[in-house]
Amino acid sequence: MPFIYPFDHAHPVAPKELKALLGGKGANLAEMTSVLGLPVPPGFTISTDACRAYLGNGWPDGLDEELDRHVGALEDRMGRRLGDPSDPLLVSVRSGAQFSMPGMMDTVLNLGLNDSSVEGLTRQTNDERFAYDSYRRFIAMYARIVLGLDPEPFERLLVEAKQRVGTENDGELPPSELRRLAGAYLELVGELAGSPFPQHPRDQLRGAIEAVFRSWNGERAHAYREREGIPDDLGTAVNVQAMVFGNRDDRSGTGVGFTRDPATGEQGAYGDFLVNAQGEDVVAGIRITEPLSALQDQFPEVFAELMDVFARLERHFRDMCDVEFTIEQGKLWLLQTRVGKRTGVAALRMAVQMTKDPAIALTKEEAVARITPDHLDQVLHPRFAAEVVDVLTRGLGASPGAAVGRVYLDAASAVEAHAAGEPVILVRKETSPEDVRGMLAAEGILTTRGGLVSHAAVVARGWGKPAVVGADAIVIEEGGFRVGGRQVGVGDWISIDGTSGVVVAGRMPLAESAPPEEFEIVLGWADEIAFGKVGVRANADTADDAERARRFGAKGIGLCRTEHMFLQPDRLPIVRRMILAESPEEEASALEELFEAQRRDFRGILEVMSGLPVTVRLLDPPLHEFLPDVTALERAEAAGGLDDEGERLLAAARAWHEQNPMLGIRGVRLGVVKPGLYGMQVRALLAAAEDVARAGGEPIVEVMIPLTVSREELALARQWFDEARAASDARFEVRFGTMIETPRAALIADELAREADFFSFGTNDLTQMTFGFSRDDVEAKLMPAYLASELLAANPFKTVDPRGVMRLVRQAVEAGRRERPGLKVGVCGEHGGDPASIAQFVEAGLDYVSASPFRVPIARLAVAQSLMRAKDAAETA
Amino acid sequence: MPFIYPFDHAHPVAPKELKALLGGKGANLAEMTSVLGLPVPPGFTISTDACRAYLGNGWPDGLDEELDRHVGALEDRMGRRLGDPSDPLLVSVRSGAQFSMPGMMDTVLNLGLNDSSVEGLTRQTNDERFAYDSYRRFIAMYARIVLGLDPEPFERLLVEAKQRVGTENDGELPPSELRRLAGAYLELVGELAGSPFPQHPRDQLRGAIEAVFRSWNGERAHAYREREGIPDDLGTAVNVQAMVFGNRDDRSGTGVGFTRDPATGEQGAYGDFLVNAQGEDVVAGIRITEPLSALQDQFPEVFAELMDVFARLERHFRDMCDVEFTIEQGKLWLLQTRVGKRTGVAALRMAVQMTKDPAIALTKEEAVARITPDHLDQVLHPRFAAEVVDVLTRGLGASPGAAVGRVYLDAASAVEAHAAGEPVILVRKETSPEDVRGMLAAEGILTTRGGLVSHAAVVARGWGKPAVVGADAIVIEEGGFRVGGRQVGVGDWISIDGTSGVVVAGRMPLAESAPPEEFEIVLGWADEIAFGKVGVRANADTADDAERARRFGAKGIGLCRTEHMFLQPDRLPIVRRMILAESPEEEASALEELFEAQRRDFRGILEVMSGLPVTVRLLDPPLHEFLPDVTALERAEAAGGLDDEGERLLAAARAWHEQNPMLGIRGVRLGVVKPGLYGMQVRALLAAAEDVARAGGEPIVEVMIPLTVSREELALARQWFDEARAASDARFEVRFGTMIETPRAALIADELAREADFFSFGTNDLTQMTFGFSRDDVEAKLMPAYLASELLAANPFKTVDPRGVMRLVRQAVEAGRRERPGLKVGVCGEHGGDPASIAQFVEAGLDYVSASPFRVPIARLAVAQSLMRAKDAAETA
Repeated sequence: MPFIYPFDHAHPVAPKELKALLGGKGANLAEMTSVLGLPVPPGFTISTDACRAYLGNGWPDGLDEELDRHVGALEDRMGRRLGDPSDPLLVSVRSGAQFSMPGMMDTVLNLGLNDSSVEGLTRQTNDERFAYDSYRRFIAMYARIVLGLDPEPFERLLVEAKQRVGTENDGELPPSELRRLAGAYLELVGELAGSPFPQHPRDQLRGAIEAVFRSWNGERAHAYREREGIPDDLGTAVNVQAMVFGNRDDRSGTGVGFTRDPATGEQGAYGDFLVNAQGEDVVAGIRITEPLSALQDQFPEVFAELMDVFARLERHFRDMCDVEFTIEQGKLWLLQTRVGKRTGVAALRMAVQMTKDPAIALTKEEAVARITPDHLDQVLHPRFAAEVVDVLTRGLGASPGAAVGRVYLDAASAVEAHAAGEPVILVRKETSPEDVRGMLAAEGILTTRGGLVSHAAVVARGWGKPAVVGADAIVIEEGGFRVGGRQVGVGDWISIDGTSGVVVAGRMPLAESAPPEEFEIVLGWADEIAFGKVGVRANADTADDAERARRFGAKGIGLCRTEHMFLQPDRLPIVRRMILAESPEEEASALEELFEAQRRDFRGILEVMSGLPVTVRLLDPPLHEFLPDVTALERAEAAGGLDDEGERLLAAARAWHEQNPMLGIRGVRLGVVKPGLYGMQVRALLAAAEDVARAGGEPIVEVMIPLTVSREELALARQWFDEARAASDARFEVRFGTMIETPRAALIADELAREADFFSFGTNDLTQMTFGFSRDDVEAKLMPAYLASELLAANPFKTVDPRGVMRLVRQAVEAGRRERPGLKVGVCGEHGGDPASIAQFVEAGLDYVSASPFRVPIARLAVAQSLMRAKDAAETA
Repeated sequence: MPFIYPFDHAHPVAPKELKALLGGKGANLAEMTSVLGLPVPPGFTISTDACRAYLGNGWPDGLDEELDRHVGALEDRMGRRLGDPSDPLLVSVRSGAQFSMPGMMDTVLNLGLNDSSVEGLTRQTNDERFAYDSYRRFIAMYARIVLGLDPEPFERLLVEAKQRVGTENDGELPPSELRRLAGAYLELVGELAGSPFPQHPRDQLRGAIEAVFRSWNGERAHAYREREGIPDDLGTAVNVQAMVFGNRDDRSGTGVGFTRDPATGEQGAYGDFLVNAQGEDVVAGIRITEPLSALQDQFPEVFAELMDVFARLERHFRDMCDVEFTIEQGKLWLLQTRVGKRTGVAALRMAVQMTKDPAIALTKEEAVARITPDHLDQVLHPRFAAEVVDVLTRGLGASPGAAVGRVYLDAASAVEAHAAGEPVILVRKETSPEDVRGMLAAEGILTTRGGLVSHAAVVARGWGKPAVVGADAIVIEEGGFRVGGRQVGVGDWISIDGTSGVVVAGRMPLAESAPPEEFEIVLGWADEIAFGKVGVRANADTADDAERARRFGAKGIGLCRTEHMFLQPDRLPIVRRMILAESPEEEASALEELFEAQRRDFRGILEVMSGLPVTVRLLDPPLHEFLPDVTALERAEAAGGLDDEGERLLAAARAWHEQNPMLGIRGVRLGVVKPGLYGMQVRALLAAAEDVARAGGEPIVEVMIPLTVSREELALARQWFDEARAASDARFEVRFGTMIETPRAALIADELAREADFFSFGTNDLTQMTFGFSRDDVEAKLMPAYLASELLAANPFKTVDPRGVMRLVRQAVEAGRRERPGLKVGVCGEHGGDPASIAQFVEAGLDYVSASPFRVPIARLAVAQSLMRAKDAAETA
């Protein structure tokens, strides 16, 4: 196998399929040259094989000979020689790996210039200024990129030169000054590098190639691969290409074009260009670019040719492409093409359009495959509409979208300000159920503690409200907060981005979310792909949530928590009466009141979800969450004494206080300790279903028991369920199941399957217990260090742990289905909305995932994509 | 297969092997009759088959016919007929299941008496008083046991009869009064039962048999089987035996004998008897019994015969037997025999003696098999030496042994009282590391909260100090505590029994512990059985602990915790300085001071354990355990302000405060957060080992990392270890390993085995996380309800959970050894001292178990017994 392939090499397959060998850039250059016959400056690609060989054992045997031969062929073809003092060939050297990857060496231009070839360039172009400007740029670029020297001293010499001439513009430096500058640069290189600047073009070329190879192992590149899961042993290719000059004269220019508008998805060319400029000038933004359409007037023939190229590229790649092009003295050259990046709106529009375009004829599956979760996030949530400048601090982006408001530090004042028409950002150390009203009133939520599954994060995601959590640099004080050296007062404006976790001082402009009509079309296709295989449900606790979930396409409620119903201000006193009850009669009477309230709650949800299943989890949190804080009560007692009720509350709060509430008396354990409670909830649920059925609705009810650890617990709960069901006039579907959220439940899944019609994995708690990680304590305080030190590959609260937690999930699915064939299995933890987790759940054979309403579209997409990938993998295998 | 077997039935195998069919009592009666030819009153056994058939489908077909035939045969043999008005046969009816089982129907005596046969008995015995006394006893016994009537009204009639006569002694009732009483009893039965007392002996017999059958499913019997793991479907046998009368005259009597002293194990007969009495009189304790030796004077021939019987029984059963016997008019009858219960001392002595007795020739294995963990506990710990009368309350027996002392409520006053020579019982809500000095000063510890692995329980067991925990009826107040309606003040005497959990008012006399010399002999045999297979180590944190562990036969330290070293009063300020350090220099200097202290600690332990491995667990608990309580500090701040140091401590305590410390930043996570810490500990350990080696000792060092969840954590810790080791002049064995105490560690054991020379299962934490049970919160508050409702078969903190936790253990052992053949695997949780858990660990193939020093003997025994059982099972299979 050779190491080097010219762009016009006769590959046995289409070069665009050879990205592993040629890298993305090289593959597309070869495709344009050899398949499409487009005007690409000639050149060749040094393969990733060569890079791997180099990184393993140094400069490979035989590479020198190949390089000589291909450089010679390029010189013959161009009729110029590298370093020729009369008419030199210049080349660019660029990296190009299989996957686009920031952090690697990018580009060295004008390679081949030296003290004598610069004279040849002067003669050929009859433009000394151009030749010496190119030379001094090349020296500086080579010094920085290939030799790794500090650019600052070079910059200083340039500034001094401009001061001497009395200008601030590089372009106004006269040739004499540029020549002097080149000389000074050469001296500086000798000084800083300890050896003279390489004058021989072959030395320059080898230096540049080695620099590209080495940059594969650079720190940023390595980190990027780690994050994106790209293998470390792929290596990069190197592209060597004859230079063309867009800065040659006014019949020259350079530009970047897109075959469609990458921001909106509109059909028709889009881009920027500059007359008499090199590519870096377009990117640097020093000069103001002209829109591509302006090319039509100035270079009508080039424009026509470019439009033809665009059309051919789109047909050929069956996607929107972006293109770098250069015009040299009226002739069009294409320097690079690739499938273009796009916004969420554009991605959706283009995907749908291209299914209708007979030249492209995208299938629905292909259209779905082209949408990323980020695309959907963009169209679902507002974003900052301007560059962020004044960053106060960063936390964890816990609920996507951007929000702007005035700072308030407690729920009451947040509610008040909201009522007065002010937009509010609620800033808290952490949130608890008592803050819920304030959170609801706020535009966004910012906490200084807690992780991605803290109370604030979970509640905010449930509402689709932006939230940044665990911003631990913030110190909340009387009247505001302090961060770094700065003070932010109550009432001051701040802006937060719940996607990136950034907290910004002042009011950022927002771009509002507006899903285009193609959103529904593409997700409809995703649903078709998933139909009958894997469903998407939503976690929703109220009729409003359920309504939203249904609007976002949820095929049921996978988790309806009942605790929020208990925390309503009108319910809390009843719940407390139940907890404080001193006789069975008192307890029963409190439960009876709750029964009516719960019945109303459930009726609302079942009405909205008529025809779709609703999984109701019986009460889960420890009882002390419904009681006031012990410390607060103790303080009140010390201050002025408590009334009778207060004393009883204090006693109860003390009795129910727990060292480790996460591992305490909650879930079904509560059902055991307060046996009337679960029975009441089941009766209320069935009564609500009867109400709905009588009114012509079609309720489908699933009762779910939380925190199960033994078959006997489940059998006991099933008994309560069976009793309530027998007493009910039930003419609707009703099922009984359990959460699998303790490791033991997963380990004895076969036993549990005997009592359960369905399982739902609660992967939040399962992750906490499998790792012994309290989300409150560990995620914010320890996780950043763990991820930075690579002690964990990913945050297991974000993407489900494939080796530990998923092993339990897979074992449990298998054991459960062995015991009860057809057992329905789903997941209702936060992971149900995470695409990388969804892929694992689909692979494990789950029947559905349940996500917060705002994540439902993303889950629908991820499910379809996971199924397609699994199908591809099965077909390949 | 017949339902009924006479005692002299010709079974194809020895009847004593037929306990499943005949029950224990029936099998031994048949053995004595048919094999040994001993004088047993004739009778027959209705088999467990009949019971099972009855419980399934009612009175079995054919049983009546068999019963008729065997009753007829018995009547023929005895020359008397049931219900004969001239010379009636009387029988006893007794239950007898395969396993001795309280809670079932015991005995009905004198069955066959009715209004006419009582006259026959009068005539035959020429003793109206005896006949009517027997009749009225029979009616009352039948009414209570067979008919299930309330005994109270019968008792009242008896009292009234005695009042009429003017006596307080049953024996002084004249025949006329007894006759009247029998009549009144018969009337009362008719009244209470709704139908007349059965006069026909066959009806009486059938009623008694059915009552025995039914009692198999009685509540107490069921609960007992559940607790002891006896299957529910075995059923019980029924023994029908001709009555003999020890209360016939002064040439009659009854007694209970043991072939050796069951209290001391002394060779030679032991027992009690009563002249002219029935068995129930001996048991009831109304009359004062005479020692068996007195029989020699009063009934020399019977005595000689009995001694001969004793010798034959011992040879035959190869064990100490107990015997119920009756003398009727000078003739000896044996009513029952079984292998006798014994105290711990006796069990040990007899086991050893019987290996030397050529007639018995017990093997060492058999001797080991006969000792129970309870036997060892008895000889290791003091016990109450008198009957407990004044029980205050009950908690969980958390650390065995009894203790007596005066109540003190805090560590400081406990230490002070102890210094003044007072014995102390420290009574606390719960204990924390700050109470350790007070605990050390106390004779025993009593807490009102917490479970079997609470701080108090674990620490007390480690010291072998009696402890009762979770006595939640106790309310601690200013100056004492309240329990039920009673007040106990500071300084008052109480007694606690850490084996049973009983708390007693006042000073109980104690029987001190004193293991006999046979203790070491038997355990030596156990060690021989286990040699090369499974070792026993101890959990020990100090040189004193290690010394004790070695004395108790530990073959190494399986868990040396380092946190107690940090809590010493002279270390705590240094530890706090490390936590508060504001610069790396401050931290390093604190660590350096700790280094020297740790080195001394480790040196002491390694010296004691020279030649045996010592596994040192690096620091595990969350840092806030080394800081004062936040609330206390806040109170101090509110009261009078804190000094600078106080404010810094408060800030640190707040920063390190955690919602769920069990799942927080501890174990190796601490090592990550405070990277100098683990390195310092390893260096101190290696330096100590060098010291010991230089002094001629033979240190064997194992470094153990706690709370691992990922291979990368372990690799990082291994790096610290390798660095310290490379820097050390180590000429001793040193190994590196990890605890497996999170479910994830167990699930990725294959990965961890790549970095670890050994695994040690921390089954306390593994149980907490697998169940989601916080030991502090759940064990005391929820576990009693869970066990009572059979939601769990056993407390998983006491006996390791066979289905969940052990599944993880087995998977991890297998995966770890697959990855690293020969991987050493042990367990160091509290379960390492629990025999039922040890059996499971042995079966899972663990190399060692580690228990607290006082549990080491029990673990040695349990290991040997588990290995023998496994061998038997393998041979049977």
